[in-house]
Amino acid sequence: MSSQMTNLRQGEVTGVLPSDFDANLFFVGRIHTPWRERSACPRRGDPVSGPICRIEIFAPWTKALQGINRHDILDILYWMSQARRDLLLQAPRHAELTLGTFALRSPMRPNPIAHSRVKLVAVGEDWLDVRGLDCIDGTPLLDIKPEHCPNAADAHRENH
Amino acid sequence: MSSQMTNLRQGEVTGVLPSDFDANLFFVGRIHTPWRERSACPRRGDPVSGPICRIEIFAPWTKALQGINRHDILDILYWMSQARRDLLLQAPRHAELTLGTFALRSPMRPNPIAHSRVKLVAVGEDWLDVRGLDCIDGTPLLDIKPEHCPNAADAHRENH
Repeated sequence: MSSQMTNLRQGEVTGVLPSDFDANLFFVGRIHTPWRERSACPRRGDPVSGPICRIEIFAPWTKALQGINRHDILDILYWMSQARRDLLLQAPRHAELTLGTFALRSPMRPNPIAHSRVKLVAVGEDWLDVRGLDCIDGTPLLDIKPEHCPNAADAHRENH
Repeated sequence: MSSQMTNLRQGEVTGVLPSDFDANLFFVGRIHTPWRERSACPRRGDPVSGPICRIEIFAPWTKALQGINRHDILDILYWMSQARRDLLLQAPRHAELTLGTFALRSPMRPNPIAHSRVKLVAVGEDWLDVRGLDCIDGTPLLDIKPEHCPNAADAHRENH
């Protein structure tokens, strides 16, 4: 517990996490970015002018990429493994107020799942190149979803 | 394994899931909706004209709501506990093609985390009312994030 109580900024409040977890995750891939440390990461990815980052898919799940090239915009979920999970109120450097964790996109949250909406640039057998990520190099991948349902994407394609 | 091999549609392909998990989740709340069965849920929530649904926050995390009323649009992450996790290729009823799991927003995926972008309607001490969800009543909540970073929200407020 002592490590959880350290490194708090003024006004920050922690809670006591439950002793048991409720569900479990697989890491389905790994994200490669130019940023080697959290302090170097942008605050939020830019799907237009951000650098191209490669998402590597691990062997058990490469087949699940089939048809992903039908979509331009993807929702990427990834795991911020370095983040502490017990903060309830946070005092981020960029904000003047102390805010609740659910009112922030900070990586420090009870379930440190990050969400980025990215632009798909290229697809290979076991990788995607995208713009719009903001995480450190080596970040574990949890999920990839198209922004639109297939029908919506089809309608879009037929109209343009 | 036998239950995982059943109920497949033509063209659907399963993979073998790893024997170990890589990370763990807490359920931080529960979502109340009008839909008691998966078959009754809309395919995707509507943040404009969808019904108001209540998100209940469990006691350890209610403080983390502080300041959330500064935001109109929220990203909600929740756990689709009824979904099988081993499907790589799926043949959804609404699509003509067999598609990879990562090219679909189907609940059946290696990590059955759903993402909905919703409109915030009202906030209480331990609940939020929102429009735009599509899940069954009782769905476990994983996370709430504002769509925008605080600075972006402040800029928006100053300009309007």
